[in-house]
Amino acid sequence: MKKLMLAAAVVTGLMTALPAAAQFAKPEDAIKYRKSGMFLMSNHFGRVGAMVNNKVPFDAKTVEANAEIATMMSKIPFAAFVEGTDKGETKAKPEIWAEMDKFRAATTTMQDEMAKLNTLAKTGNQDAIKAQFGKVGQACKACHDNYRKE
Amino acid sequence: MKKLMLAAAVVTGLMTALPAAAQFAKPEDAIKYRKSGMFLMSNHFGRVGAMVNNKVPFDAKTVEANAEIATMMSKIPFAAFVEGTDKGETKAKPEIWAEMDKFRAATTTMQDEMAKLNTLAKTGNQDAIKAQFGKVGQACKACHDNYRKE
Repeated sequence: MKKLMLAAAVVTGLMTALPAAAQFAKPEDAIKYRKSGMFLMSNHFGRVGAMVNNKVPFDAKTVEANAEIATMMSKIPFAAFVEGTDKGETKAKPEIWAEMDKFRAATTTMQDEMAKLNTLAKTGNQDAIKAQFGKVGQACKACHDNYRKE
Repeated sequence: MKKLMLAAAVVTGLMTALPAAAQFAKPEDAIKYRKSGMFLMSNHFGRVGAMVNNKVPFDAKTVEANAEIATMMSKIPFAAFVEGTDKGETKAKPEIWAEMDKFRAATTTMQDEMAKLNTLAKTGNQDAIKAQFGKVGQACKACHDNYRKE
């Protein structure tokens, strides 16, 4: 259990250790990078959702594993919202760069809610996990409403 | 340091805990999933490469952080080579499914070499890291040569 809880903390530490700039050779790489991270986060988060909403049978171990990976992935995309990556194959709105502090705060809220989901996922309490799953979903939506094009 | 070494082990454990089947609603999702994981692995592996090959100044902490994330990502893509995902927007050759045991062995070799890179990355020994970076690259190439279309 301690091992599992460490992993998300480790990724957080790693990502903050990386310099924000000069990580991508081309703007397209940054866009592809954040889309990849978002997709993997969403996929594993969705697997938790399918179980808490009884679309597939609830299995505590599977919920725990998926919440852990979703939490790690939640740290990945946001280093890639670098300057000059608001054009091209992206739904990112220019507001992201116009109000980066607010955007960062919104992403941090999501990451915090996801970390709470990860903690609760280890309890196997389906009701509590379901409630927290909803909070993460709200945090996703809040950011998408403000910062993602239709 | 122990924390860092744990993370990759944790992801390995998590991925093996997930059932191989029924994780993807559509074949396209599985394809997008493995592409996303490959891209993230390749991006972070490439950042290690840029440093060991002196394309950007060597920084031990950055090498360590990127090797760690690349190692975690190396566990991600391979659960998504499920049956029925050999068609569509993929370069995966049918040989993957025709000789799945050999494919699994090749991916495990890459994961093992990446884990060794991760261990060496913590030493800060640029020569040793560079040599192991080459071995990982060979493992990537071996699999791509056999199982990825041009």
